[in-house]
Amino acid sequence: MSRFTVWAPACDSMEVDFEGTRLPMERSAGGWWQAEREDDTPGARYRFVIDGGEPRPDPRSPWQPEGIDGPSATVDHDAFTWHDGAWHGARLASAVLYECHVGTFSPEGTFDGVAARLDHLVDLGVTAVELLPVAEGSGTRGWGYDGVALWAPHHAYGGPDGLKRLVDAAHARGLAVVLDVVYNHLGPAGNHLAEYGPYFTDRYRTPWGSAVNFDGAGSDEVRRFAIDNALMWFEDYHADGLRLDAVHAIVDESALHLLEELAVAVDARADHLGRPLWLIAESDRNDPRLVRSPEAGGYGLDASWSDDFHHALHSALTGERSGYYEDYGRLSQVATALRRVHVFGRDWSPFRQRHHGRPVGDLPATRFLGYLQNHDQVGNRAVGERSAALMSLGRLKAAAALVLCAPTVPMLFQGEEWGASTPFQYFTDHRDPGLGRAVSEGRRREFAAFGWSPDDVPDPQDPATFERSKLRWDELDDEPHASVLEWHRGLIALRRHHGELTDGRLGAVEVDVDEECSWLRLRRARVTVVTNLSPSACDVGVPSGGEVVLASDPAIARTGAALHLPPDSVAVLVRE
Amino acid sequence: MSRFTVWAPACDSMEVDFEGTRLPMERSAGGWWQAEREDDTPGARYRFVIDGGEPRPDPRSPWQPEGIDGPSATVDHDAFTWHDGAWHGARLASAVLYECHVGTFSPEGTFDGVAARLDHLVDLGVTAVELLPVAEGSGTRGWGYDGVALWAPHHAYGGPDGLKRLVDAAHARGLAVVLDVVYNHLGPAGNHLAEYGPYFTDRYRTPWGSAVNFDGAGSDEVRRFAIDNALMWFEDYHADGLRLDAVHAIVDESALHLLEELAVAVDARADHLGRPLWLIAESDRNDPRLVRSPEAGGYGLDASWSDDFHHALHSALTGERSGYYEDYGRLSQVATALRRVHVFGRDWSPFRQRHHGRPVGDLPATRFLGYLQNHDQVGNRAVGERSAALMSLGRLKAAAALVLCAPTVPMLFQGEEWGASTPFQYFTDHRDPGLGRAVSEGRRREFAAFGWSPDDVPDPQDPATFERSKLRWDELDDEPHASVLEWHRGLIALRRHHGELTDGRLGAVEVDVDEECSWLRLRRARVTVVTNLSPSACDVGVPSGGEVVLASDPAIARTGAALHLPPDSVAVLVRE
Repeated sequence: MSRFTVWAPACDSMEVDFEGTRLPMERSAGGWWQAEREDDTPGARYRFVIDGGEPRPDPRSPWQPEGIDGPSATVDHDAFTWHDGAWHGARLASAVLYECHVGTFSPEGTFDGVAARLDHLVDLGVTAVELLPVAEGSGTRGWGYDGVALWAPHHAYGGPDGLKRLVDAAHARGLAVVLDVVYNHLGPAGNHLAEYGPYFTDRYRTPWGSAVNFDGAGSDEVRRFAIDNALMWFEDYHADGLRLDAVHAIVDESALHLLEELAVAVDARADHLGRPLWLIAESDRNDPRLVRSPEAGGYGLDASWSDDFHHALHSALTGERSGYYEDYGRLSQVATALRRVHVFGRDWSPFRQRHHGRPVGDLPATRFLGYLQNHDQVGNRAVGERSAALMSLGRLKAAAALVLCAPTVPMLFQGEEWGASTPFQYFTDHRDPGLGRAVSEGRRREFAAFGWSPDDVPDPQDPATFERSKLRWDELDDEPHASVLEWHRGLIALRRHHGELTDGRLGAVEVDVDEECSWLRLRRARVTVVTNLSPSACDVGVPSGGEVVLASDPAIARTGAALHLPPDSVAVLVRE
Repeated sequence: MSRFTVWAPACDSMEVDFEGTRLPMERSAGGWWQAEREDDTPGARYRFVIDGGEPRPDPRSPWQPEGIDGPSATVDHDAFTWHDGAWHGARLASAVLYECHVGTFSPEGTFDGVAARLDHLVDLGVTAVELLPVAEGSGTRGWGYDGVALWAPHHAYGGPDGLKRLVDAAHARGLAVVLDVVYNHLGPAGNHLAEYGPYFTDRYRTPWGSAVNFDGAGSDEVRRFAIDNALMWFEDYHADGLRLDAVHAIVDESALHLLEELAVAVDARADHLGRPLWLIAESDRNDPRLVRSPEAGGYGLDASWSDDFHHALHSALTGERSGYYEDYGRLSQVATALRRVHVFGRDWSPFRQRHHGRPVGDLPATRFLGYLQNHDQVGNRAVGERSAALMSLGRLKAAAALVLCAPTVPMLFQGEEWGASTPFQYFTDHRDPGLGRAVSEGRRREFAAFGWSPDDVPDPQDPATFERSKLRWDELDDEPHASVLEWHRGLIALRRHHGELTDGRLGAVEVDVDEECSWLRLRRARVTVVTNLSPSACDVGVPSGGEVVLASDPAIARTGAALHLPPDSVAVLVRE
């Protein structure tokens, strides 16, 4: 017996359509409909028929074997054999995250392709893989932020079983898995939710599509949709964490913010499952409320991305000052990011033309993620070039040392560990010709404003743009990739061996900067990072007894109480 | 020398126009402009000319002697002679508020008209007068919520000096003054702020007009505009409190909500002025965050209106169940409002079609206002009838007893104390014929949906609608008005003499209800209120030793351990 349920409060009739055969559904409490079917073979194709209209996929479809426009399919989650009974999860504060896009990480572009390369990540030393959204969206190529079947792992990646095999394989290797989920909007194609119920509102706006109705009439079930979805990934796919996309676009003016309700629900589930479950927000608000406890008036999320950390570091190292980098560029801001997490803790932002953010106060830095790169910061550039293409090798190593010795939880973007030569560009696969054209033209127009010629901006719809963005694993043994990889491996090992590096208490973080001579020194108890970013060599005082354990340049040498650093170099010292 | 300043960040030129004579202004830092003029005679008429366009009133105009379409005029706030040096403010927790609309309170319809009747309020026993918005808006008649010159006391009420005389007279009598201020939108006529700067945003919506830009580009100065305005009323007009209109329509998604920034600023000013300054929110969110301290993640306002208290009481007493009263009507909800403030503390609301609100937890009830009537609840009815027109005298007295013995801070609406026979209707005075017609028609349409014939809905634009809403002071000595007035006087005296009534700790509030027999008993230490709302007499147990000090009906009598209550009656007992 298989059971079909769907929430459609305003409909007069509802049927399940099994490739032509239809079963009427019965209305039950709260606007839900249900039907039962004798045949319970997993994989049965079905759609819902609302008031006799066009058959539509299930809003909670667990599988879209033929993509967003095809039927939904049943999944028997109990049928999968898990081998991760010994896995008890991991702590976020001591994690090193690795952001991974399933379609471009491996040549196969599938969950199995990722699973086949997990040993590389174990060898690198990272402790958690964070997958860009895996929910079914347009076509077969895309970043994942335009998903519409939010419960269905993408068929092109390998569907539900593929994702389970990947998580199982990760757990077998001691790696946690974080999934990126999008609750602030749905993709522009294949979104039929509004036909089912009041999922959307026009009281607020998002840049990407209708805002989701989290506080108006009927919002209880919309909130439930998001919260059940989150719990589903933990329960059915054994995920260890969720990265919540752009929570600043989740507007909820009710007395209980969706994020707080979600955090409380996930916390209870963690207690039930007996392992930590992480909720990590992406937010551009610099608002510590996200990660404060509900008792202190916060939403109780585990961590938030810190774009300030990225922007400060990127801008200081590349010299870029356009767009939002206008607000950054001084080495002292990198120091602020290291010491206070937020560069803008209610400070004037010329780019935003207002005061911005709020100090993190006594929160530990481990409630925030710091990074030099991520899919957005790389991929939202016109041609998607990585940091390795934008700065000297010495600076790249300096950045890595700062990210991996920072009090924030570090995150790498796939290929960053070897300074991959491949770009990560913006690619889509919209099957609707009008939408595809609009996306291509929109991208060209966006960058024309920054002086880019249309011909130089890759077409998101062109399959070559996607292919170009795939990692090239054959470059790993070549220089400088091999030495960049070795550098990251060394830093991660250092972080995992020295407890002070994963201690998020900001009071113990010491940073000195000489803006003019362009050097920065970060001290974290026994570990010291010193970098010289100036065009000339300099000597920087270092703690006595500190031994250089990592040096980006052979010319780095101790001279008494100071360390001699050639231009664009970095060293890590440890006092035992 | 008089100095003119204005914020207009995007303008290329700015002049001050003195009835034809123009003075160029100089741009200074942050988008501000300034000019100085030798002549500093107060009352000088001026307007600003933006980029050579039509002369416009000053956004911070202190006086609009000829209304919203006329020039601004200078005011010398130091020229007024205050007599309230001995006034040190009052505590909100022990206050009894009285909501007053300047235009209809007295026959004169002016600040002086209110001042002339303050002795009535002193005699009644209330401790604070709360004026509906006094900021200059369309024409001469209006509730005040469509103000556009937010710094200028309405010329039709008597302008700046009139308001000062009223506050001075109130303080002389020991009465605090609260002003109702609107920061969520501006009125539909005479609003030129958008020509000056980015005061508005289309990212959010309000039902009444463009949302105010409190979190986008340029919002620092918009926030400053609201905060300076608040401080101005305290500083220049010696106000004791502000009632913040519909704060749920102030959307601010930044890391520091405007209301918290405002509360912190007002708190600092209170310390400087050496007297309490109240911030009281009107909100429909049932969100305790408004009044929690910033240390506990709240916004730190002093109090919030509790519509739940009103709706529960009104619906239980009138039997009305339409519109939002759908959610109310049970006597047990009145008990919940008395014991927990919020009836909806994350409970399902059929009217809102979602769960609503949040429990107030350990907050004292004195952080909330409770009332049977206010301008909205009376005036938003089709014909603006008061509670006295909707229920028996016995019920009216029962309601008064519950409001004035409740743990929440009580508030009365002008005329409520004598069960005024006059309605309080919706009236406007838009000078633009199109707008006036739209308002008249909108009102008729709104109530047509509730089955009202257009002819029965008073026309807001008709001066007779305003005149009809004026209190009739000549009815005070007639019955039943005289006895209703005496009843309120007695209850207020009781509240002021028995400390347990102003003790907001909810743990000590005991309420028993017999829904079937329709009686309710409220115990607050030595004071007990018992009411029988059923069509038949009943006996309700009362504490031994309690003496009946107020009885709505001569047939109320003690019978052993019980009190005999005829239908629709109420008694207050005190155990000494």
